[in-house]
Amino acid sequence: MYEDIKRHIRDVKDFPKKGIVFKDITPALADGKCFAEIINIFYEKFKGVHIDKVAAIESRGFLLGAPLAQRLGCGLVLLRKPGKLPYTSYKVSYELEYGSAELEMHVDSVSKDEKILLIDDVLATGGTMEAACKLVKKAGGEVVVCAFLIEIAVCAGRKKLAQYAPVGAFLEY
Amino acid sequence: MYEDIKRHIRDVKDFPKKGIVFKDITPALADGKCFAEIINIFYEKFKGVHIDKVAAIESRGFLLGAPLAQRLGCGLVLLRKPGKLPYTSYKVSYELEYGSAELEMHVDSVSKDEKILLIDDVLATGGTMEAACKLVKKAGGEVVVCAFLIEIAVCAGRKKLAQYAPVGAFLEY
Repeated sequence: MYEDIKRHIRDVKDFPKKGIVFKDITPALADGKCFAEIINIFYEKFKGVHIDKVAAIESRGFLLGAPLAQRLGCGLVLLRKPGKLPYTSYKVSYELEYGSAELEMHVDSVSKDEKILLIDDVLATGGTMEAACKLVKKAGGEVVVCAFLIEIAVCAGRKKLAQYAPVGAFLEY
Repeated sequence: MYEDIKRHIRDVKDFPKKGIVFKDITPALADGKCFAEIINIFYEKFKGVHIDKVAAIESRGFLLGAPLAQRLGCGLVLLRKPGKLPYTSYKVSYELEYGSAELEMHVDSVSKDEKILLIDDVLATGGTMEAACKLVKKAGGEVVVCAFLIEIAVCAGRKKLAQYAPVGAFLEY
């Protein structure tokens, strides 16, 4: 099952910059059966867990988080790059492999003690997901799990996230 | 039903720039019941139509297109801003209310004669959706419908899109 999904993930060399091999999930999404299998893997893994909301990281996290929220019967929260969210937002800065960045979340999107499943497509260094964890905590929410489709194990992101929540990732590279 | 969804859509004045009243759908997504109702409206409307793939416009279109593709049992195609797609892409330029922009689509994401449902959150002038229609046509696909959650009727986008495909929009303002 996982091997079938892996066959639909394309390596693109030197994207977004030289030396990086980008995991392109678009062929997996474009195949309806493969896309359904991906969402089903997440659903089966987390259906027994108490989750109030799915919070998805812009933009590829939206592609997984939106259908997963629907399957779990949850609301969806957006974690976006600066300036994209229209309403009053919390903001967290973080370091990337190449430069620094910021992530924002509407102040009213997570309530106190709500249990949040965070989701993104790829776990590399874990910097973006760490920022996401901080945003949820700022709002008083509890991160139940950090979920990913793909984990680039050599980048050790799992270690960085250990202090926030368990990591669930399905395809290891 | 539509009125209930409208109650979950927030007007944000002067976003992204002065004079514009932005329709913020994030409260509708954060409410699991309301989000499910939105996707269900699209599903009920299009379940009887022959659709091979859903093509969603970055980024809010992803939030609707990804779950709708799952419900319809279709693959999902991404229409993205320049430089975001890693593989060889078609590109179309278009005019916005404020400036100009470009939209891209992977050359292998739509096959000849495939029937495509295009989706975005808001129909205003229709410029972005027109670019999306052109991208699908470049790849040899057929746009079956341009679907939106919200239509800002005064902007007359429906008229611009009439030459490409029927428009399906559910909440009129």
